[in-house]
Amino acid sequence: MTLDDIETPAVVIDRDRVERNLQKAQAYADEHGLKLRPHIKTHKLPHLATRQIELGACGITCQKLGEAEVMADAGLSDILLTFNIVGAAKLKRLKALAERVTLAVTADSTQTIDGYAETFRADAPLTVFVECDTGMGRCGVPSIDEALALARRIDGARSLRFGGLMTYPAAGRTEEAATWLAEASRKLKEAGLDVPVVTSGGTPDMWRAHEAGVVTEYRPGTYIYMDRSQVAREACTFDECALHVLATVVSAPAPDRVVLDSGSKTLSSDTLGLEGFGYIPAYPEARIISLSEEHGVVDVSACGRRPAIGDRIEIIPNHACVVTNLFDEVHFVGGNCHVERVPVAARGRVD
Amino acid sequence: MTLDDIETPAVVIDRDRVERNLQKAQAYADEHGLKLRPHIKTHKLPHLATRQIELGACGITCQKLGEAEVMADAGLSDILLTFNIVGAAKLKRLKALAERVTLAVTADSTQTIDGYAETFRADAPLTVFVECDTGMGRCGVPSIDEALALARRIDGARSLRFGGLMTYPAAGRTEEAATWLAEASRKLKEAGLDVPVVTSGGTPDMWRAHEAGVVTEYRPGTYIYMDRSQVAREACTFDECALHVLATVVSAPAPDRVVLDSGSKTLSSDTLGLEGFGYIPAYPEARIISLSEEHGVVDVSACGRRPAIGDRIEIIPNHACVVTNLFDEVHFVGGNCHVERVPVAARGRVD
Repeated sequence: MTLDDIETPAVVIDRDRVERNLQKAQAYADEHGLKLRPHIKTHKLPHLATRQIELGACGITCQKLGEAEVMADAGLSDILLTFNIVGAAKLKRLKALAERVTLAVTADSTQTIDGYAETFRADAPLTVFVECDTGMGRCGVPSIDEALALARRIDGARSLRFGGLMTYPAAGRTEEAATWLAEASRKLKEAGLDVPVVTSGGTPDMWRAHEAGVVTEYRPGTYIYMDRSQVAREACTFDECALHVLATVVSAPAPDRVVLDSGSKTLSSDTLGLEGFGYIPAYPEARIISLSEEHGVVDVSACGRRPAIGDRIEIIPNHACVVTNLFDEVHFVGGNCHVERVPVAARGRVD
Repeated sequence: MTLDDIETPAVVIDRDRVERNLQKAQAYADEHGLKLRPHIKTHKLPHLATRQIELGACGITCQKLGEAEVMADAGLSDILLTFNIVGAAKLKRLKALAERVTLAVTADSTQTIDGYAETFRADAPLTVFVECDTGMGRCGVPSIDEALALARRIDGARSLRFGGLMTYPAAGRTEEAATWLAEASRKLKEAGLDVPVVTSGGTPDMWRAHEAGVVTEYRPGTYIYMDRSQVAREACTFDECALHVLATVVSAPAPDRVVLDSGSKTLSSDTLGLEGFGYIPAYPEARIISLSEEHGVVDVSACGRRPAIGDRIEIIPNHACVVTNLFDEVHFVGGNCHVERVPVAARGRVD
């Protein structure tokens, strides 16, 4: 199979860029004594998770039990599940998963901790991190006192083991997060608790993860593929973006407009605060101004030359992680232009 | 399987509401002498397409070849594919599809028409509609003169048959669209062309499809499930919404905030111009203010009582069509609360 054989819309991934992105991040982590625990939500592919481990990652991060189950099936053996696992059915699955991999989870409430404590047993305890809200405003305890209270509750449960502190900081607010985590670590240690790991995440700020000296483990996801939002946040350049959506021009109904066969069903509606829905390297002045499910409308009024009906166009999406969830298969291309089609094993694992 | 056995997040569909929505739309079409050609992109399920035909629909509409192939496999026999099919690989698939179903497609350029003309043969001609831009600003010829020129080109190709005019009007601009189509029909007829069908679509304005007397066929999609955007556009009430996403509260980290296990990977980021990402009937004052992939953040500050961790919550999404594309399976519930899990056969058919 060659590039010309790929029907559009399709996801095409540059193998060499992937490898360079993985090596660069691992080298950064090694240089600064950080452990790397990549988030697999971006690629959802066991062979890439395995490669991340080969390069030196200490384990992987998953966001849903279903993703973790796929990765465990593929032989990944050390998983941090950064989610509050709630309810009898999911706790049963969690226990089954813990019996076959080294597993840790997070909690931000007594209810979640008590669910874990009742599910596990003292002879095979579950490692639980306290999730901390260091500015994101999503999950996580909002105060250090609550972090301490939950850490004590975990530490006091015979079937649980306190793993440390976990956060997903707001983009651009790493200093605030570091201050929070440093103060929390100090208080927990004062209270006699060991804090084995302080884990943070997010690709946009990953190159600053070492600065405050408090984070011991980092969980970047998007760094493997990068995307337009990471370029906008100066985490990479367009030349480092390894994933693009290949689309075809199917309509050119007005001088200033062409329409692609790729819409929100393939690029997603995610803007991540950006204008437009992707970047077209071959037509840098083009703007993808609106999407419907199967169409992408491109304003080409600023382009010196314009794409024609039938032309194939590469789009660097705003958000790579959500794009891989929209495709059953992705295409890897190496230096010899040979194309390999790979099923996205953990795609659509919603629970 | 009962409702309690469903793991969240999940899509749950009320069978009775579906049936009522289908019957109401068919009765409206019958009353006004309109043919109904439902768009299957909303449900992506052969058994519902079959039910639409049983109730009186003249055929179905698909947006992608892959969707049409799934429907043809399931025995649906009359398909309008409202897309410019471009490129050798897709034209080959189109020809194969035309050999087993009654098929029509659209075109808005000479290039697209010429591709069809070269692919098909005079003894088995392809029916081609001219797509008209009546205000949407997506695909479609922008002027009546161009519509006439393309209709003549189709009519003059021995391997093609002119099917009529097709549009997807901008929401709320049905009168403008009707004026455009009436004038175009008149000019085409003056030029000696028969205009067998004038086909329009869109659920928001479907109850007004008969008003101008020019549209002969209507292609609603969302009407089968309805959603929050249709309520906002007064096409239905919340009681007519047949699809909801079932989610669980997994975090309640602040008095004004709970977090659900349903984010953009299950609700999508589509706002369709609305504020927030869905409506929670049991907590009408709650606002789903932000989504990340696996989390939905809900502002509950205006709620008299608040959901607790572990509670299961029904969400009527902004946009039902994109939600069904995000789930491998959906759950149908009837009056007896028996739950049937059904794979979404045409999900993810991106090309």
